[in-house]
Amino acid sequence: MHKGRLEAFSDGVIAVLITIMVLELKVPHGESWVAVSPLVPVLLTYVLSFVFLGIYWNNHHHMLQATERVNGAILWANLHLLFWLSLVPFVTGWMGENHFAPLPTAIYGIVLLCAAISYTILQTVILRLHGPHSKLAAAVTNDVKGKLSLVLYLVAIPLAFVSSWLAGVLYVLVAVMWLVPDRRIEKTLTH
Amino acid sequence: MHKGRLEAFSDGVIAVLITIMVLELKVPHGESWVAVSPLVPVLLTYVLSFVFLGIYWNNHHHMLQATERVNGAILWANLHLLFWLSLVPFVTGWMGENHFAPLPTAIYGIVLLCAAISYTILQTVILRLHGPHSKLAAAVTNDVKGKLSLVLYLVAIPLAFVSSWLAGVLYVLVAVMWLVPDRRIEKTLTH
Amino acid sequence: MHKGRLEAFSDGVIAVLITIMVLELKVPHGESWVAVSPLVPVLLTYVLSFVFLGIYWNNHHHMLQATERVNGAILWANLHLLFWLSLVPFVTGWMGENHFAPLPTAIYGIVLLCAAISYTILQTVILRLHGPHSKLAAAVTNDVKGKLSLVLYLVAIPLAFVSSWLAGVLYVLVAVMWLVPDRRIEKTLTH
Amino acid sequence: MHKGRLEAFSDGVIAVLITIMVLELKVPHGESWVAVSPLVPVLLTYVLSFVFLGIYWNNHHHMLQATERVNGAILWANLHLLFWLSLVPFVTGWMGENHFAPLPTAIYGIVLLCAAISYTILQTVILRLHGPHSKLAAAVTNDVKGKLSLVLYLVAIPLAFVSSWLAGVLYVLVAVMWLVPDRRIEKTLTH
Repeated sequence: MHKGRLEAFSDGVIAVLITIMVLELKVPHGESWVAVSPLVPVLLTYVLSFVFLGIYWNNHHHMLQATERVNGAILWANLHLLFWLSLVPFVTGWMGENHFAPLPTAIYGIVLLCAAISYTILQTVILRLHGPHSKLAAAVTNDVKGKLSLVLYLVAIPLAFVSSWLAGVLYVLVAVMWLVPDRRIEKTLTH
Repeated sequence: MHKGRLEAFSDGVIAVLITIMVLELKVPHGESWVAVSPLVPVLLTYVLSFVFLGIYWNNHHHMLQATERVNGAILWANLHLLFWLSLVPFVTGWMGENHFAPLPTAIYGIVLLCAAISYTILQTVILRLHGPHSKLAAAVTNDVKGKLSLVLYLVAIPLAFVSSWLAGVLYVLVAVMWLVPDRRIEKTLTH
Repeated sequence: MHKGRLEAFSDGVIAVLITIMVLELKVPHGESWVAVSPLVPVLLTYVLSFVFLGIYWNNHHHMLQATERVNGAILWANLHLLFWLSLVPFVTGWMGENHFAPLPTAIYGIVLLCAAISYTILQTVILRLHGPHSKLAAAVTNDVKGKLSLVLYLVAIPLAFVSSWLAGVLYVLVAVMWLVPDRRIEKTLTH
Repeated sequence: MHKGRLEAFSDGVIAVLITIMVLELKVPHGESWVAVSPLVPVLLTYVLSFVFLGIYWNNHHHMLQATERVNGAILWANLHLLFWLSLVPFVTGWMGENHFAPLPTAIYGIVLLCAAISYTILQTVILRLHGPHSKLAAAVTNDVKGKLSLVLYLVAIPLAFVSSWLAGVLYVLVAVMWLVPDRRIEKTLTH
């Protein structure tokens, strides 16, 4: 099967997700700075989630670039990833509205953790179809950033109940780490 | 006519549907477990509907893969399918908010039944254009899962007024049955 | 310039429009037939608008199939069409919620009229680029349905203030007339 | 890397943005002219923002047409542009609801300014990859409209606190200036 529609559908879902988040930024009923100030934490979480969805789209784009064909298992592994990503606007709105309260902050981390795990599953399923000597296999042999992200999420989730700001800092750390695009695949593809 | 835009438009509509459902998950006004608990049935129906829309996208993807060209009748049969799918977020929100009350649960089944019927119509219209010796015809000769789904919906809808939970179990059964992707088309295409 | 992105963007906008209309179907706060009954006119207008947007997508699809290249004027004529279509969910919700009151029913017709005019403009701009001997020119020489639609809208809009139900009947008539796909272009293309 | 998915994703995001803005046009609870009149400023800002997003899509379309390949830096510069565009529905709703009050009108200009800057960054990053002798470089050497827009935004933002209507006139001026499509790239491509 061709990968074209898998890419188009994923692009569509992530494009909608990244934009409906902005609907959580409720238009303030007022025209002064006072009306805007409660929006600041909502805006901050919006930026963070926008970056996370951007990272997933970016990495998905790189990975699919190195993918030659897809099967039923890949379609479902991809939908599984999209499911967890689809919860991002919800947890973003919840965490932002409650000014980084412990429970929403922890659940935000759980959704990010599940998205990261489902991305790893998708990568594994694609690798199984393409074999250990494929371009993709060469590109992702040493997935340090992927493993470190999982560890940081696992630390941040319980930490949210101690200090939700510290948990937030860890989320930002993961985002910053990934903002550097995955040059491994880019390099392998150009060689 | 080429099938490219039919696929692109269907991908777009299903991508939007699968993501706007998440807007029914209203951000809770509170930061405790108590605020989250009313969301559990809403979340469960969200997962169920996400899987159903995923199944339709998946099967649509397989069927169109085996389709060579489209005509006006196919465009309209496809829009008819999309119409019923577009009601899924509405009935999902209604069933979830009312904790599986009889009427919403029955109407949820009616929408699923109509979607299944319109999918069968779409398949029939595509087969008529491609003839009885096409790849697609060979792939769908023995549509056991399709017929069984219709039967299960027809049982579940009246059952909802007796026990809405039993009806819900039947819906889950249909979803699980389809989660196994339609290998018939995949096999026929690769042979 | 290639027409690919014009098609993709139009597909995207129409796909979003046709699905966000469903957000006007507010989930009823109740589980009985009484809770559903105020939704009936909303649902009827939803079906009508779904069909109208489907017709536009369908005709747009046929017209662009016969288009070979695009220029800046076509991009803007297309955006102009999308602008009027983007108001459809708004007027649909307004007309449905007010049970076909005169003013919303008239404004619904005005939006449909403006969409029809902008579609004619788009067609004219495409024809100008492709010349009088193009396939598209041969296919649309005798645009009876297009002209009749404009007349019916012009009758329906003032009629809404006398009998909004009669105006509604005229809208349905236009939709039914167009439901038969534009075989002219299909035939011209296959010959 | 191919530019296909970058285009598809940008089309998706801008298509969603341009259509979810219509959700800010809240369906009025009434059927008279009185119910509609508070919507007039909201509708006006909707038209303005629709045109701005249309301009960005149009220019993005022209620029990417002249782009041959993309890299990680371009993906992120593009996401950065999409981020600022994603705030347009929010500031549109806010400015419209408050009838062009000073603060929302100034912030509307800030978002437009940031979008313009991020577009310039995207252009620079693409130019860096394609070199000074590329088609795109020839097409954008003399970016008068781009520079003039930045100046007009910088004037309009503080002006909003003196006269928000004058600031609005400047925004309209920028939009009108860009409505003439960027023929430079079109010409360079056809030569």
